[in-house]
Amino acid sequence: MKFLVLNGVNLNLTGLREKSVYGTKTLDEINAELTAFCKANGDEVTFYQSNIEGELVNKLHEVFLQKSCDAVIFNAGAFTHYSYALRDAIAAIDIPVVEVHMSNVHAREEFRHISVLSSVCKGVICGFGANSYKAAIFAVKA
Amino acid sequence: MKFLVLNGVNLNLTGLREKSVYGTKTLDEINAELTAFCKANGDEVTFYQSNIEGELVNKLHEVFLQKSCDAVIFNAGAFTHYSYALRDAIAAIDIPVVEVHMSNVHAREEFRHISVLSSVCKGVICGFGANSYKAAIFAVKA
Amino acid sequence: MKFLVLNGVNLNLTGLREKSVYGTKTLDEINAELTAFCKANGDEVTFYQSNIEGELVNKLHEVFLQKSCDAVIFNAGAFTHYSYALRDAIAAIDIPVVEVHMSNVHAREEFRHISVLSSVCKGVICGFGANSYKAAIFAVKA
Amino acid sequence: MKFLVLNGVNLNLTGLREKSVYGTKTLDEINAELTAFCKANGDEVTFYQSNIEGELVNKLHEVFLQKSCDAVIFNAGAFTHYSYALRDAIAAIDIPVVEVHMSNVHAREEFRHISVLSSVCKGVICGFGANSYKAAIFAVKA
Amino acid sequence: MKFLVLNGVNLNLTGLREKSVYGTKTLDEINAELTAFCKANGDEVTFYQSNIEGELVNKLHEVFLQKSCDAVIFNAGAFTHYSYALRDAIAAIDIPVVEVHMSNVHAREEFRHISVLSSVCKGVICGFGANSYKAAIFAVKA
Amino acid sequence: MKFLVLNGVNLNLTGLREKSVYGTKTLDEINAELTAFCKANGDEVTFYQSNIEGELVNKLHEVFLQKSCDAVIFNAGAFTHYSYALRDAIAAIDIPVVEVHMSNVHAREEFRHISVLSSVCKGVICGFGANSYKAAIFAVKA
Amino acid sequence: MKFLVLNGVNLNLTGLREKSVYGTKTLDEINAELTAFCKANGDEVTFYQSNIEGELVNKLHEVFLQKSCDAVIFNAGAFTHYSYALRDAIAAIDIPVVEVHMSNVHAREEFRHISVLSSVCKGVICGFGANSYKAAIFAVKA
Amino acid sequence: MKFLVLNGVNLNLTGLREKSVYGTKTLDEINAELTAFCKANGDEVTFYQSNIEGELVNKLHEVFLQKSCDAVIFNAGAFTHYSYALRDAIAAIDIPVVEVHMSNVHAREEFRHISVLSSVCKGVICGFGANSYKAAIFAVKA
Amino acid sequence: MKFLVLNGVNLNLTGLREKSVYGTKTLDEINAELTAFCKANGDEVTFYQSNIEGELVNKLHEVFLQKSCDAVIFNAGAFTHYSYALRDAIAAIDIPVVEVHMSNVHAREEFRHISVLSSVCKGVICGFGANSYKAAIFAVKA
Amino acid sequence: MKFLVLNGVNLNLTGLREKSVYGTKTLDEINAELTAFCKANGDEVTFYQSNIEGELVNKLHEVFLQKSCDAVIFNAGAFTHYSYALRDAIAAIDIPVVEVHMSNVHAREEFRHISVLSSVCKGVICGFGANSYKAAIFAVKA
Amino acid sequence: MKFLVLNGVNLNLTGLREKSVYGTKTLDEINAELTAFCKANGDEVTFYQSNIEGELVNKLHEVFLQKSCDAVIFNAGAFTHYSYALRDAIAAIDIPVVEVHMSNVHAREEFRHISVLSSVCKGVICGFGANSYKAAIFAVKA
Amino acid sequence: MKFLVLNGVNLNLTGLREKSVYGTKTLDEINAELTAFCKANGDEVTFYQSNIEGELVNKLHEVFLQKSCDAVIFNAGAFTHYSYALRDAIAAIDIPVVEVHMSNVHAREEFRHISVLSSVCKGVICGFGANSYKAAIFAVKA
Repeated sequence: MKFLVLNGVNLNLTGLREKSVYGTKTLDEINAELTAFCKANGDEVTFYQSNIEGELVNKLHEVFLQKSCDAVIFNAGAFTHYSYALRDAIAAIDIPVVEVHMSNVHAREEFRHISVLSSVCKGVICGFGANSYKAAIFAVKA
Repeated sequence: MKFLVLNGVNLNLTGLREKSVYGTKTLDEINAELTAFCKANGDEVTFYQSNIEGELVNKLHEVFLQKSCDAVIFNAGAFTHYSYALRDAIAAIDIPVVEVHMSNVHAREEFRHISVLSSVCKGVICGFGANSYKAAIFAVKA
Repeated sequence: MKFLVLNGVNLNLTGLREKSVYGTKTLDEINAELTAFCKANGDEVTFYQSNIEGELVNKLHEVFLQKSCDAVIFNAGAFTHYSYALRDAIAAIDIPVVEVHMSNVHAREEFRHISVLSSVCKGVICGFGANSYKAAIFAVKA
Repeated sequence: MKFLVLNGVNLNLTGLREKSVYGTKTLDEINAELTAFCKANGDEVTFYQSNIEGELVNKLHEVFLQKSCDAVIFNAGAFTHYSYALRDAIAAIDIPVVEVHMSNVHAREEFRHISVLSSVCKGVICGFGANSYKAAIFAVKA
Repeated sequence: MKFLVLNGVNLNLTGLREKSVYGTKTLDEINAELTAFCKANGDEVTFYQSNIEGELVNKLHEVFLQKSCDAVIFNAGAFTHYSYALRDAIAAIDIPVVEVHMSNVHAREEFRHISVLSSVCKGVICGFGANSYKAAIFAVKA
Repeated sequence: MKFLVLNGVNLNLTGLREKSVYGTKTLDEINAELTAFCKANGDEVTFYQSNIEGELVNKLHEVFLQKSCDAVIFNAGAFTHYSYALRDAIAAIDIPVVEVHMSNVHAREEFRHISVLSSVCKGVICGFGANSYKAAIFAVKA
Repeated sequence: MKFLVLNGVNLNLTGLREKSVYGTKTLDEINAELTAFCKANGDEVTFYQSNIEGELVNKLHEVFLQKSCDAVIFNAGAFTHYSYALRDAIAAIDIPVVEVHMSNVHAREEFRHISVLSSVCKGVICGFGANSYKAAIFAVKA
Repeated sequence: MKFLVLNGVNLNLTGLREKSVYGTKTLDEINAELTAFCKANGDEVTFYQSNIEGELVNKLHEVFLQKSCDAVIFNAGAFTHYSYALRDAIAAIDIPVVEVHMSNVHAREEFRHISVLSSVCKGVICGFGANSYKAAIFAVKA
Repeated sequence: MKFLVLNGVNLNLTGLREKSVYGTKTLDEINAELTAFCKANGDEVTFYQSNIEGELVNKLHEVFLQKSCDAVIFNAGAFTHYSYALRDAIAAIDIPVVEVHMSNVHAREEFRHISVLSSVCKGVICGFGANSYKAAIFAVKA
Repeated sequence: MKFLVLNGVNLNLTGLREKSVYGTKTLDEINAELTAFCKANGDEVTFYQSNIEGELVNKLHEVFLQKSCDAVIFNAGAFTHYSYALRDAIAAIDIPVVEVHMSNVHAREEFRHISVLSSVCKGVICGFGANSYKAAIFAVKA
Repeated sequence: MKFLVLNGVNLNLTGLREKSVYGTKTLDEINAELTAFCKANGDEVTFYQSNIEGELVNKLHEVFLQKSCDAVIFNAGAFTHYSYALRDAIAAIDIPVVEVHMSNVHAREEFRHISVLSSVCKGVICGFGANSYKAAIFAVKA
Repeated sequence: MKFLVLNGVNLNLTGLREKSVYGTKTLDEINAELTAFCKANGDEVTFYQSNIEGELVNKLHEVFLQKSCDAVIFNAGAFTHYSYALRDAIAAIDIPVVEVHMSNVHAREEFRHISVLSSVCKGVICGFGANSYKAAIFAVKA
């Protein structure tokens, strides 16, 4: 299978900020682990990160129009809580999208308890640190 | 590792009711798959299901007092949405509990969007059918 | 037809408590009247009462799995207002369930105005004292 | 006993509109059945329908001032959800009023879950199609 | 001055219903008192009552178009709580309208605490029984 | 095509009240313009206005039962914000209804931001003064 | 009769502040008018104003314990909207209290639409400027 | 006097879990202290704990039907916040029930600020650790 | 130990007003009982009452700055429900404050169900009449 | 007249996604129709689409600063429901903006019922598919 | 310029309570710094603090009636969150009032996020400790 | 010290739009004043403005990663009210951020009363026009 791992706003700082919440691995290190994991499973994986909501929309459109992946693993960061634009982009495409979060968002501030994306995603995984991405890939393949 | 897979109310009917939502595998069949999965990984797994909230509380107390497992994979069914009793039981014990749901609860009725358990669980996984359990075990081990 | 008359929490005290609200007939006396009523119509009726939510869930499962009745007349008592567990049990089975209350719940405390069961029941009858049960049987047969 | 069967707004279209919700019997056919049912029981029944809220208020006043019936069986249609005028009319008169709905209003749009009439009625019956009226008469007589 | 005393829904039953709330004077008796009061002050007064919201709207339009009174004393009954139609009619005309209630609506059911009319009226008087009308006339003249 | 232009409560005062909001054209003048506009397009148009909610319900029933028009252009005035009776009448008939308002209701009082009619109408047009009607006819024909 | 006219917070500035809302008469001028009005009616009136909530409570206690007046005409100013202390003081005494406001509070900011005092007062009068006090005295005597 | 000290869900873990909140005394130790305290006062005390809501209901019924105690000291644990079943059981019996909590529930999570039991209890005591029970017995006797 | 018994607004009327709610003992009589109770226990107690919120704040500051008592037993009356000023005063001082109410506030009007003080107090006791104070002293000492 | 037709997020996929909601015409085809329509009327029209909120803001600034069009026809897509940035941009410029939607947003998910843009637009048109744009141009010119 | 620095409830304890929130400078020390700061700028400054809401109202009236200052720097303490009395006093006077807080109120308890004063103040400054006062003076002069 | 003055959406139009709210100085003129002010104080200041939310996030990341300033003065414009993306960016970096607004946002539309940024900023200043920026720099340095 082909996966796109899509990361949203502020996730480029992973490993550099608030390490007690997000751990000390950088996004590059996480991606390297995912590449190895996919390779071991005979899968392909590509990565994209942006802090601009519309560029994430564009990326979702692109994989839909180019049929370039089988599933999207998507950590939208704070966009999760208000971006109906991303919600509509997910709903518009016929590729399954899995919503992931590294932290357990339900154990944090109240605004993080609401996701406007979940209802149009295939499933949701949160709370396992960088392993949330890996579990999402595992779950799609299971 | 030793896992307890704990199922709450109405989950004994899995495979027998609302098959479009929950699939056609029975709970026994799901459990058999999980047993095989754990065995393959060198893990042990036990199972418990009850429709009585207090019996689930008792089970959580038991594994805590007997230190009889390393993690609980817990699908509380409809108790998820109002059982502060189960919430307090999860918070009381020092064994990690992963909340799982077979369906994507966020794509269903509004009362299913609220979980009173999530904030005291380690993580949450939903939407992958019977594979949600497997992904939870995978995530804990990852 | 075969009916199950199912009574939930505190209804075993009917006729013994708050008589201005619930009247002076005991549950046994009400059941005796219903037995006579059904007999007169050529119907069968059985009775079950429990103060334990999960036992009511189990009973609903039982009649579903054993196909042992054609309709359930269900007064859930205070469970009406918060038991999503019972709601899911009713939704899970393909036997029609009629929600009944002896008092007019809408003329009492505000928490009694909300039923989490109604939307998955066939119909609702309240306000006619012990005759609410009889009217429910009548309505199912009509 | 003498009954008034009172129908509110849009109920004159019963059997002509949204048949999947309201069935195919016209209001005249339903009324004919109720006349037969009452006759068989030795009761009298009269009928009134209006799409004008104030005319329904007037009718309730009339039966109160003329003491011309023993109970009112009232399907207020959409007025159920906002007509405090009808609520006050029901509260003003000393004849018992039973609120009925053909559909199970709790399984439909959210605005139909709220009745401003229920708290001043004797009881409420919904979900049994045209038989809701019959069950109401039965319940009053029981 | 010329006054119109306008009474809304159910007020024709004043003195005949719920006497503990509304007293035992009929509307005719109240009107007779107001006629005497106005006469004593050298004022004219006319009366109109309807249970049909639209007829009250029409009456408000009529006095506006015919310039036939200097102020309206308006007890809208239960329409007070939801009739935006009456609100717009009051706002549309350039004759001052005083909202009156015989009972102290703030000491009764919660739905009576909200008036959709008050913000477009000149003033509000409630709680003085039939004397609320008289006080309104006094206040307009003062 | 045949159009019914239906106007609700207080709209008979158009051009006579609050001219800064509604302009100075009377309803007759607006209707004359619409007649000319329709004639120019080869369409027919009839008009109905009432301040009585139930008469508007009756008119909607009439065109449905008599199949006397192809579309209704409906400015319900303040009924827009609470008349579930009109909502059900619109939902009951199989003729498309377009909701129109002369003013931009979203730039006015908060209660005008909510329409209980919109969800059962074909579309909504507001903010273009008397031209809102014309735009609705244009849109239906486009 | 003996009246106490009680004025709360900021009312000492009447006539000196926001004249478009409260008019140009000072509180002394208003009180002088009320003295004349009462004298003409053969009544007695005394006055008290304070910006300190507790002093108003004390005054209400005093007239209750000394039985020194027959009714209180009370404009609590902004205390109206949150002083449960004053509410309890009014409820504690067996002298009727009439709530008055010079402006029509319902046509002003939203926080002024809620009075925590109204439900324990005899009645409420607002919107008639300084004449609101006079109308309250009139209404109590009527 | 005869007291029943009734403990609800998770309280069997007292002294074993979250010791910073609940202290280190076990429930047995607390009960032993209460036995001594009652003995010293010439009172009798019995104890019951269950994690099953319905068993607590049953216990309340039992003491009511057997008239076996004079007052119930009840710490319902998390059931406090949603068990209308327990609320109705308390309301049904004519034995005074005192609600107690060891922690100050108002200084903890928001869901703990709401008790559905308080309004039907005689009184409420919280925040004094294991001494809350003792203070409740003291208060009933005082 | 040294106690300050602090009483807020309207409590000076205890025994003189609403006797069905607050009993017939005056505040002086209650205080005399508490003096005797403390004496018997070898404790000291002083009393302060004010209807002025700021004077209660001042008293709390005084005992804090003068270290003149070990605990405060505080019945704030209606200030309980809105005085964030008192809340901050309680939070500012390092002397434990126990919130007490004579009546069971949870069985009365809805606004009495909310206390802005509870979360910064040591504990809360309500519903035992004048004995609530005594139980608070007992609980602090226990 | 000169028009700018501005399309927001995901509208580049029109005709390619969710065809049951948005139809099968692509945005280019819709634009071609609008060009023809404007040409026929002697008007000019230009087009702009972006998935990036800030680029839409920039475009609105540009036409304002360059005075390059007489009206904007704006379908903001999902930005409609939360972009206060676009709202302020519309409010900042003195060119009339008409809000359009192809679908009837009021008949879809609840979050689509709220527009943060409407109150600063000239008018709103929705529900006529691609013809909503045309009707907006018609309405501006009418 | 002449400034009044006005401090409300509990601010007399600054430097003596909760030092982690409010720092260790006493109010006198802060005032001394402000005096020096103003002197250096050629400005005059006076100070007033009270724990009694009505005395703060009186002070605001005084500077208004005596025209004794050019601007008020006002830290109302907890009164900020509910004192409509202070709000009306600020609105009543034509001297600009700047709302200040030493702590960042938005990072503290939820009730501190709402100020009933802000909308009638000239501006708001919070979060800079004792320097918030100085910044307010700077801002007024800038 | 080194400051970054960061301006968000629509602020490039300052001085060109809604001059009664924002004044007539352009952003360039404001920035020139701030440059002079900082120079006079021996500080450095740089400026950045964007209408694209993600570019502002990037800028905040940049100064964090490059340690290129000591404090950020941030006017986020309308992003203030919904951009959790910016909130997380502010929280992620260890440079203090001061939230500023030129207008008093609390005296404007209700949606402007809520800031999702404030709780993670050092402080907030609003209402002093272009001087709000200057006061923020002053406050940081004080």
